Amino acid sequence: MAADPGALARMFRARRIAVIGASDRNPFSAPVIRNFDRFGFAGEVMLVNPRGTPVQGRPTLRHVRELDGGADAAFVCVPSHLVLETVAEACDAGVTGLVIVSSGFAEVGGEGAAQQEALRRLARERNVALLGPNALGFVNFVDNVPLSVLERQNMRGSFGIASVSGSVGGYLAKIADAQGLGLSHMVLAGNEAGVTIADILDFLVDDEDTRSIGVFLEAVYDPARFAAAAERALRAGKPIVLLKAGRSANTAQLAAAHTGALVGEDRAFDAVARELGIARVDSYEDLIATARLLEATGPVARPGVAALTISGGSGEVLSDLAGSANISFPAFSPAVRAELDGIVSGFGTACNPLDLTGAALANPALWERLLTAIAADPEIGLALCIWDLPVGGEPEWIVQTLDAIARGYKAHERVPPLVTTVAEPVTPVGRDALAAAGLPGSVAGLKAAATALAHLRDWSRRALDPRPVSLAVSSGPAPSPAPRPHGERALLGWLDAHGVPVIPMRLAADAEAAVVAADATGYPVALKIAAPALAHKSDLGGVALNLADAAAVRAAAADMIARIGAGHAVEGVTVSPMRRPLAELIVAITRDAVWGPMLVLGLGGVWVELLDDSVMLPLPATPNRIVAALRSLRAAPLFDGARGRPPVALEPVAEAIAAIATGALALGPDLATLEINPLALLADGVEAMDAWGEWTA
Amino acid sequence: MAADPGALARMFRARRIAVIGASDRNPFSAPVIRNFDRFGFAGEVMLVNPRGTPVQGRPTLRHVRELDGGADAAFVCVPSHLVLETVAEACDAGVTGLVIVSSGFAEVGGEGAAQQEALRRLARERNVALLGPNALGFVNFVDNVPLSVLERQNMRGSFGIASVSGSVGGYLAKIADAQGLGLSHMVLAGNEAGVTIADILDFLVDDEDTRSIGVFLEAVYDPARFAAAAERALRAGKPIVLLKAGRSANTAQLAAAHTGALVGEDRAFDAVARELGIARVDSYEDLIATARLLEATGPVARPGVAALTISGGSGEVLSDLAGSANISFPAFSPAVRAELDGIVSGFGTACNPLDLTGAALANPALWERLLTAIAADPEIGLALCIWDLPVGGEPEWIVQTLDAIARGYKAHERVPPLVTTVAEPVTPVGRDALAAAGLPGSVAGLKAAATALAHLRDWSRRALDPRPVSLAVSSGPAPSPAPRPHGERALLGWLDAHGVPVIPMRLAADAEAAVVAADATGYPVALKIAAPALAHKSDLGGVALNLADAAAVRAAAADMIARIGAGHAVEGVTVSPMRRPLAELIVAITRDAVWGPMLVLGLGGVWVELLDDSVMLPLPATPNRIVAALRSLRAAPLFDGARGRPPVALEPVAEAIAAIATGALALGPDLATLEINPLALLADGVEAMDAWGEWTA
Repeated sequence: MAADPGALARMFRARRIAVIGASDRNPFSAPVIRNFDRFGFAGEVMLVNPRGTPVQGRPTLRHVRELDGGADAAFVCVPSHLVLETVAEACDAGVTGLVIVSSGFAEVGGEGAAQQEALRRLARERNVALLGPNALGFVNFVDNVPLSVLERQNMRGSFGIASVSGSVGGYLAKIADAQGLGLSHMVLAGNEAGVTIADILDFLVDDEDTRSIGVFLEAVYDPARFAAAAERALRAGKPIVLLKAGRSANTAQLAAAHTGALVGEDRAFDAVARELGIARVDSYEDLIATARLLEATGPVARPGVAALTISGGSGEVLSDLAGSANISFPAFSPAVRAELDGIVSGFGTACNPLDLTGAALANPALWERLLTAIAADPEIGLALCIWDLPVGGEPEWIVQTLDAIARGYKAHERVPPLVTTVAEPVTPVGRDALAAAGLPGSVAGLKAAATALAHLRDWSRRALDPRPVSLAVSSGPAPSPAPRPHGERALLGWLDAHGVPVIPMRLAADAEAAVVAADATGYPVALKIAAPALAHKSDLGGVALNLADAAAVRAAAADMIARIGAGHAVEGVTVSPMRRPLAELIVAITRDAVWGPMLVLGLGGVWVELLDDSVMLPLPATPNRIVAALRSLRAAPLFDGARGRPPVALEPVAEAIAAIATGALALGPDLATLEINPLALLADGVEAMDAWGEWTA
Repeated sequence: MAADPGALARMFRARRIAVIGASDRNPFSAPVIRNFDRFGFAGEVMLVNPRGTPVQGRPTLRHVRELDGGADAAFVCVPSHLVLETVAEACDAGVTGLVIVSSGFAEVGGEGAAQQEALRRLARERNVALLGPNALGFVNFVDNVPLSVLERQNMRGSFGIASVSGSVGGYLAKIADAQGLGLSHMVLAGNEAGVTIADILDFLVDDEDTRSIGVFLEAVYDPARFAAAAERALRAGKPIVLLKAGRSANTAQLAAAHTGALVGEDRAFDAVARELGIARVDSYEDLIATARLLEATGPVARPGVAALTISGGSGEVLSDLAGSANISFPAFSPAVRAELDGIVSGFGTACNPLDLTGAALANPALWERLLTAIAADPEIGLALCIWDLPVGGEPEWIVQTLDAIARGYKAHERVPPLVTTVAEPVTPVGRDALAAAGLPGSVAGLKAAATALAHLRDWSRRALDPRPVSLAVSSGPAPSPAPRPHGERALLGWLDAHGVPVIPMRLAADAEAAVVAADATGYPVALKIAAPALAHKSDLGGVALNLADAAAVRAAAADMIARIGAGHAVEGVTVSPMRRPLAELIVAITRDAVWGPMLVLGLGGVWVELLDDSVMLPLPATPNRIVAALRSLRAAPLFDGARGRPPVALEPVAEAIAAIATGALALGPDLATLEINPLALLADGVEAMDAWGEWTA
């Protein structure tokens, strides 16, 4: 359930603030009050202390009731058993936004979880924005509203942080500060009983001062709203760079212990993040570097990257890192190369990365000339300069170099941050030098730069693709049909009705009927036991292939029906023609606990079993996306006719898979799994050969 | 050719130093002379300037001849065309070590390369240690000998740097400084005409003050000596952490442009580095973090890692990073878990990583109690503490925490560096606090820590394995035999003589002889054209399989001989029994330009062609190492009987491969490639089915 956006925005931009439970000894209220002074908060601050004694030299009110005229935000730091009552009283007094720092709720389970649920209901009933519980608060750096336990200086900028964890949010802010990436907002959400990460994203996407967003979370509580906010960010060109704990099984357990959150299947989140154009990173430093780069350049259409350096070794290190991440460092186009050669002929060669050597120390203007020449290269979307920032006391040419670089970028469409050779904090001197030259900050170190470049490539591709986000979780599922199709034949029949090519299949009640069916089908045939509740037919000897004549069919059918019918409900056997597939796919629709229906595709046989070579994408999915997914399999060269196989046209395959997915979605939210194994790729089309479904209830 | 180790050690510990070409305007001599003052160099400094005018206020000699009594080291900064003459004169004057900073040698090619070769010969003839040309010099931080253009402060420690690139060496030293990792030596080797990276490694391995070594290079010029030095480092427990440019094809080209070096095949270097226990990293920051960790702990036998943190989110981030690198974070053993539960029951759960929560802020002694308990866990080899260093002005409990951590480590065999939550420089305050607590420094950030842990695991495994290093390049090749075996039959015969199981094969000159041979072999048979110079028999229709009777053999043999014999020299056909292998391997011996013979193993079919699923290891290789290599293939589960196949006993397979390798080595250094494709894995053994060789000359 969404927090009221009006109340949320009012809270983040509060002019009247109450601190409920303030005292000189309270470890939470003291830093909050210090923050007001540090930021020079210009609004009204009211402290509530039951004894009415002054706190940090400020007068206090004895009771929440005395909050005359209410407040845009109240910081609640009372013992956890008093929180519910306090919030109710605050709402009565006209408070519309609350930060609950008190802990002991869902993260401890049991009674705490029940208290949190009560808190959630209360916030919804009163239509207030409730951040927490277990939340360290927020800082609005633009409007100077520092309602957080984390004490910070105001380095105002355009990077917004939304973190469930207060400590992680603080680390991200610290690194952003150190890298000179100014903040617009930092919101530390805690247990998300009221305001969720999706609410915060929504606010940051709309916030004009925010140009990039960093997120840390363990679970997504309101996937549809999260997806909607992320899509709006994508359309607005505001990158979301996200660190989500729970890639490893060990971490998923930890996260549960940490917040009681359902982490969900990491692979499903990964697939959703790709669809939403979210850049998913694995470290604090990469998050900041990626946000910095993407914010500075916006989406870049041409994937080619160039780099300029005075350290040949560093150019090589960056080129190796880029190679590992499949980032393209193309050779310069002939015309550009000729021009570069003319400039560097005395000391180097026009490779990419381009080594300016010590020659650039004596002659900073080289940067301008070379950058200007590179701007004409049709392959290059971005030219990076590897250069270290001044820290004070440097010779004049260090600063001249920054100016020369800035002039060289005049001819460029996109100006990236500087890339420093080593990861180190940006000093005030460095920050001022960048600002004076008009350059958009810096990225710390070659490795973080390579990681950020990979994210820029992926994010740009998605952001420049006008295709709307397609997630079933956003639209809500259709109801499950009644009666449900059960067993192979019924499911294949359902798929057939949804336009999926399905292998012809005749049901025969006994051996003689099977012979009649086989005669009609034409030999050789395949026989399968018809037993809707039987999952693993072949394990029980319920499949017979390549039966060449009536006698073989009769014998196999009689044996199968007698043997399996002894222990299972059997309708007879099915008779189908034999096929010789060029390849076989496994197509599965599963239901993620958070994100709903997901499509999983893989090649049959060793590929899935040994190599786990499968790909997941959220549903619904267009045939185009399915083709792209199939092409991302490691086994994809097989589709192009590797190893003497005929090539496979993937478009009709993708059409059939899309139809399977449509059929599966029509089975409603109670379908847990639908597996087509195999989907046979034939010389003249595709056919679903077998189907199995499981239901949640 | 090795530089004279005596002269080298004398140079690095020089007491008498000459600067030849010193002048107030020389961009190289000025910083060198400033370094003498900065380090308080206690030895004798003689400046040589042809005009004899004072330089930086110091008196000068007019000519190298006047260097009475010679010098342990001379810094040569004269124009490149004077270098050769100057070096000769210096040797005449009794100089035994030289640093040549002048550039314009091999890195520019042509005449420069010739000049460098002359310099190399001269240094060898005179038995002097010559560092360079194009070298920025060296700094001995232990004995205060700063003979380098790079101006540095002396933060003495135990980390030695050997870098071909002066700029990269400087960046590494800068990061080491920022991370509080003190240096013993920094040697910037330049073009390696005399002193090579191997010479420097040799020196650093023997140097008592050096406990870990960082290397940057683009190529290895004297592989046998490099390997010998690395093996000595391994036995001494001194980690070598290495960054080698050239992983990507683009970078290999760059490196050639940069120094004119032959970068060699990166995969071969990777295989050699594994054999030598060298930790290969891809960034400056990872190099320092890895050196720091490995130096602090030494080899650790138990691979399990524990971590303690006050930020649950950071524990999760580290756990996810560790998961990606297959680092084991095991659950605590039942006894330890019970003890930990008793300590954390009020605020958390005893997961690994262990979240101390804010409870540890109020009670730093928790660190000691928990660490002490974890020391009893039989799975845990190392327990990391995630904690940020003081920078000044912190409350008392920050420092108390460091002491509590140090006390907790008393029960531990291995004490790792602290891991800081974010990557940031260590301030003097932090450095002092670590020293006061007696902790071995810090690693900067969670991601670098995870990378370093992965290297620690691999290095420990190799360092604790007493198996000597096995590299053909160290022993020198056997001469090639005469006459060389040519073509399939001759090569298989050669392998047979070296103990390799080979498929029976009868040569038949014509179709009738083929029938006789097939009758003797037993049907069905396989026929192949016998044409020693023909590489791709099957492409030319020179292979016929599954021939079931005499008529089929006669027809196939006649056709093959007539058709192929029309254009190629043909001896007839070979007749072999048909086999039904459980699996097929491709076994190739190739010759790396730097490292000599390498063994490449892969499964036949799609595995190698589509997935590039192959493994390389240097020769000679024992069967044990070959088994380990086969097990490292992605397809390895197939050997264990995946997908209903019978399992394959790898020991006899490895014996056969080792025999193939022995046979290949006996073919001498002129063998470019020997490929066995396939080596058939049969139910009752293995057989080489086909062989092809190529020769360099």
